[in-house]
Amino acid sequence: MSVIEQATSTLHFPALKPPQRYLFGPGPSMVHPRVYEAISKPIVGHLDAYFIQVMGDVQQLLKMAFGSSDAVTLVISGTGSAGMEAAVSNFVEPGAKVAIFANGYFSDRLTEMAKRHAANVVRFEKAWGETYSEAEARDFIRREKPQVVAFVHAETSTGALQSGHAICAAAHEVGALVIGDCVTSLGGVPVDFDQTGIDVAYSCTQKGLSCPPGLAPMAISERAMAWLRARTTPVRSWYLDIKLIHDYSTVSHRYHHTAPISMFYALREALMVIAEEGIENRWERHRRAHQSFVKGIEAMGLQMHVPAEHRIATLNTVRVPQGVDEAKVRKNLLDGPGIEIAGGFGPLAGKVFRIGVMGPLATEGNVEFFLREFKKALAQE
Amino acid sequence: MSVIEQATSTLHFPALKPPQRYLFGPGPSMVHPRVYEAISKPIVGHLDAYFIQVMGDVQQLLKMAFGSSDAVTLVISGTGSAGMEAAVSNFVEPGAKVAIFANGYFSDRLTEMAKRHAANVVRFEKAWGETYSEAEARDFIRREKPQVVAFVHAETSTGALQSGHAICAAAHEVGALVIGDCVTSLGGVPVDFDQTGIDVAYSCTQKGLSCPPGLAPMAISERAMAWLRARTTPVRSWYLDIKLIHDYSTVSHRYHHTAPISMFYALREALMVIAEEGIENRWERHRRAHQSFVKGIEAMGLQMHVPAEHRIATLNTVRVPQGVDEAKVRKNLLDGPGIEIAGGFGPLAGKVFRIGVMGPLATEGNVEFFLREFKKALAQE
Repeated sequence: MSVIEQATSTLHFPALKPPQRYLFGPGPSMVHPRVYEAISKPIVGHLDAYFIQVMGDVQQLLKMAFGSSDAVTLVISGTGSAGMEAAVSNFVEPGAKVAIFANGYFSDRLTEMAKRHAANVVRFEKAWGETYSEAEARDFIRREKPQVVAFVHAETSTGALQSGHAICAAAHEVGALVIGDCVTSLGGVPVDFDQTGIDVAYSCTQKGLSCPPGLAPMAISERAMAWLRARTTPVRSWYLDIKLIHDYSTVSHRYHHTAPISMFYALREALMVIAEEGIENRWERHRRAHQSFVKGIEAMGLQMHVPAEHRIATLNTVRVPQGVDEAKVRKNLLDGPGIEIAGGFGPLAGKVFRIGVMGPLATEGNVEFFLREFKKALAQE
Repeated sequence: MSVIEQATSTLHFPALKPPQRYLFGPGPSMVHPRVYEAISKPIVGHLDAYFIQVMGDVQQLLKMAFGSSDAVTLVISGTGSAGMEAAVSNFVEPGAKVAIFANGYFSDRLTEMAKRHAANVVRFEKAWGETYSEAEARDFIRREKPQVVAFVHAETSTGALQSGHAICAAAHEVGALVIGDCVTSLGGVPVDFDQTGIDVAYSCTQKGLSCPPGLAPMAISERAMAWLRARTTPVRSWYLDIKLIHDYSTVSHRYHHTAPISMFYALREALMVIAEEGIENRWERHRRAHQSFVKGIEAMGLQMHVPAEHRIATLNTVRVPQGVDEAKVRKNLLDGPGIEIAGGFGPLAGKVFRIGVMGPLATEGNVEFFLREFKKALAQE
């Protein structure tokens, strides 16, 4: 027996037994039992005709979720941040001017990635939680004339929803491609990919789709695909090279990498659950749960951080009342009923609670349950 | 009801029901039932103390699998190819000289990634299936004096195992870091990270670890971590930035990305199954199964592609007999008993079968079952 083996065998690793959590944070969200069943089905090979069919089904179902009839949909074998990096590394060439609507943490991450890809980044700064009017968006883009525009549709760090219509229209006027971060919107609120005019959207599986984290669904316009086919500089990332991934997943099915089979099973099932409910019914259910949530929060005398017309239905930022230690409230919720919520960070550290009402939890009954426990946790603090 | 919703609801997606396969290919391999149970356990948040513990357990158990007492072990949230790209993007600076032992497909992929990262690549070319002697390895490295040396420990495309001892010794003489591709070796054959002197090893979950694909375990020497801390040029990839991932997974546990929780559950359980068997017992079991396999193959009058002393115990390349259509043989196996094996590709297209005997399948009984069916499939052709 080797030293290593001895060291490991004397360690006591208990059996895996995760605690039961009510995931009311910004994600991961609760997972449907059917999705847990799907994720544990026996795997087949990544080039097996059955798996190719699963990938095809996922692509088709993603068109429903993104709201597109003819976008190229595909899935990156990494989490939402891998989707962001796929968008940046494929559509931002070294030296390209990238205009970023900077009103939260994920626009900062986009900035960081664009800089690492040697872009010339210009930012339109706003406070965390604010959004951009149509006129502001247009003026910025017309003035800067960038090659790429990036905005965050639903900003997880602030709870603000940014409409993309004016951004996309202005970007297309100046010949720019638009990257839209839809990590927190997909599946919970409409993305309207085609109508909005987004060129490159990426998301994750663990928020509005109510699936475990691990994959990044993307939608890419024909315009963006044509641009990519014509790109002459090499894409730095081989793993995230969209032309190669598209070829494997949709065109030739030639080996690129070994796709995470079990995660694809899970994503397919999560999308099936959504299709069976009807995506518009699902959005409506989330809207109703959100309204109940806000009503309850305001009845408690608390304030929402984002103005009513710019809130994300699935992710609420509630201001921490004066004198309350938000970390203690979160601890009370986790240690007591096992409810996970998140705090703010960056400029919003200590100032907001971030509370997700998504997927299976987006019902009036679950909102009532949450508000009751939240009130108790605040009182205990 | 929208156009998209109508289109989706009229499609008929059958319930997920993957066919039962015997995965005798180069990977993914068969998954232990305990791992399927673990992957379907309820998720917790990615910053939950329980999940931090799971990540810590996985890191500890990986030391056993890699054969290291003090390497930094961590897990990339992507497949084995993401591990390769993490190795290249973190340890290859633009303009760096990278010496690659080029004797199969995965050294070509390393070449491609290194070139995309603007490296100056020099290659020591050999035919697919050949390996390098100690003297050859030393001479190449002493002559080229690279900053980075990359070799493939177990080459999935050829079935050849390359010892890293002389490579690492010579590389360290000239001050180079060594990247070792352990995608097909980890968990099935000894990697001996410390003894060999590898600086950066990456692997996957779906081969020797008998877990579904989706994560890339890595081991990094203290020497390589020190080099990385001192690196001044930015790492192009934010998603694969090892300093940030190490900080999230091991040091501060500050949010970097949302780790694939369910996949970590699965990997922890797969490593537990290995620890309980004993890693050295497991290697021995694979060695024995491999010997039975080779004996059976030779008794059938067939030939192994790689000389006996350089074979990977877990992945066998068997030469296709003259006049046999290997694709038909594979089809017979898949359509009949549901056995997946792979063919060769590149210079070995049509010339070899690639047959994995890994994890739960690495027993004499399963080898007998396989050989019986393989013989039938060859006869049918």
